[in-house]
Formats: sequence, C-alpha cells, structure tokens
Amino acid sequence: MTYDPANIFAKILKGELPCHKVHEDENALVMMDIFPQSKGHALIIPKVASRNLLDANPATLSSVMPLVQRVAKAVKAATKADGVRLVQFNEAPAGQTVFHLHFHIIPVYEGVALGTHGGGKADDAELAALAKDIAAHL
Amino acid sequence: MTYDPANIFAKILKGELPCHKVHEDENALVMMDIFPQSKGHALIIPKVASRNLLDANPATLSSVMPLVQRVAKAVKAATKADGVRLVQFNEAPAGQTVFHLHFHIIPVYEGVALGTHGGGKADDAELAALAKDIAAHL
Repeated sequence: MTYDPANIFAKILKGELPCHKVHEDENALVMMDIFPQSKGHALIIPKVASRNLLDANPATLSSVMPLVQRVAKAVKAATKADGVRLVQFNEAPAGQTVFHLHFHIIPVYEGVALGTHGGGKADDAELAALAKDIAAHL
Repeated sequence: MTYDPANIFAKILKGELPCHKVHEDENALVMMDIFPQSKGHALIIPKVASRNLLDANPATLSSVMPLVQRVAKAVKAATKADGVRLVQFNEAPAGQTVFHLHFHIIPVYEGVALGTHGGGKADDAELAALAKDIAAHL
C-alpha cells in the first residue's frame, strides 16, 4: 500500500481545499469532520505524509500525540460531552476513507447514539462555530 | 475523575492477576483482550498510572505510541487481517470499562462484523496461541 499525494487531506494541508480549521502548527492540522459521528467530531492530521498508522514514522506519532490529547480535552470542554473516543482507522475494511494518517476525536453524549461514519454532512455554520469554540479551549 | 489503583489493569501490571501477555517492557504491557471484538484484539497498557487520555502525562503518550504502532503491525501480520482499528475510550459513556489508560488494537476482517465490546469471553488456549503469534511478529 502506497501513499497517494492526491488524497483530500493532502489537498487541504496544501490549502487547495477549504476546511473548518481548529488549529494549525508546524506538525499538524486540526479540523472539524464534515461528516461528524457526533457534535464536535474533530480530526488531527499530521503534516508528514503517511497512508496510516502502519507506514507512519514513529517519531511523527510521538510528536502528534500530545496534540491529540489537547484536542480530546478541548473537544470535551467545548461540547460538555460525557466522554470522548479516540479512533484511528487503517485500510478500507477497517473504515478508513481518506488515505492520509488522521486521528478522530469523537465526543460521546450520554444516551445519544453515535452516527455512522460518513453519514450526513453537517451544517457549515455549525461546524464553523464549533471550530472556534474548540480552538478557544485548546 | 480520579485514578483508582484497585482497577483490574493495575492489578495485572502488579502481577496480582494473570493475563495473556504479548510483550512487556519498562514502559508498557501488551496483552490480549479476553473479551475480543475480533480475533487478535490486543491492548497496550502504559505502566504510568492514569485514568485515561484526559489525565495522562503527554510524555507517556509520546513514549507509548511507537509501541502501539508496532502492535498494530504485528497484529495485522499475525492475523492476516484486512485492516486494523486503533481505539481508545475515555469515561464510561464513551465505552471505557477499565479506568487505567489503554489502547485497543482491533483487527478487522473483510466481510466480518466486529463483535460488541464486552461480548463473550474468548477461549484461553486460543488467546495464548494468539499472544505467542503476535509476539513473534513484534
């Protein structure tokens, strides 16, 4: 399995496509998932190119994890969710749909079932407001 | 939310309870999940005590991630799974059942639905064989 540089996250990282950005630094981009499984579903995308966890540079993984943690805490604080899931898919049978390494932070609300990954597209105004609110908690 | 040192993973780390061990080093223990969502479901448990991702030391997260990656690759190689999921739950509403930080590596097989977390207990002989096979691929 190889890395395809034309994937949608690579284009977002290059600024060729828009996103609801929460945060960006030299190592990673944080943005809202536009097909959220719950309100506040965010993605952390390391800038170093890899297809997924299986071919990633271990140093990239080590450097991004403190940010993954910060996003988990910020999402929980901003959304007042009752819990948070960290999920990362490798290869299509496991649920991966974009083949550039990314981590999902999915808030969970007591009594509310999670939506299907790749379900409906969220409202842009709502995503923009969430991105701003999560950024304020980072 | 505080850390309860009487949790079952703390007891396993102290050797007070048995496990199907795949690997152990100074930083972490890797073992089979005895209630697997699929054949080969493994857990990576950092030794430094934290309840989950939300209260973990960022340095602990950075140091354990290369091992999480190695386990993902070893599980995939040993089981010949078609994909792998990395999952980590924070607080009960998100699915956390043991309150000591741990990462799930869940192999996914094309056309086979994942079982429910906390479903049936797996056969000990099968778990022992899987632990040995995954260790050989680490």
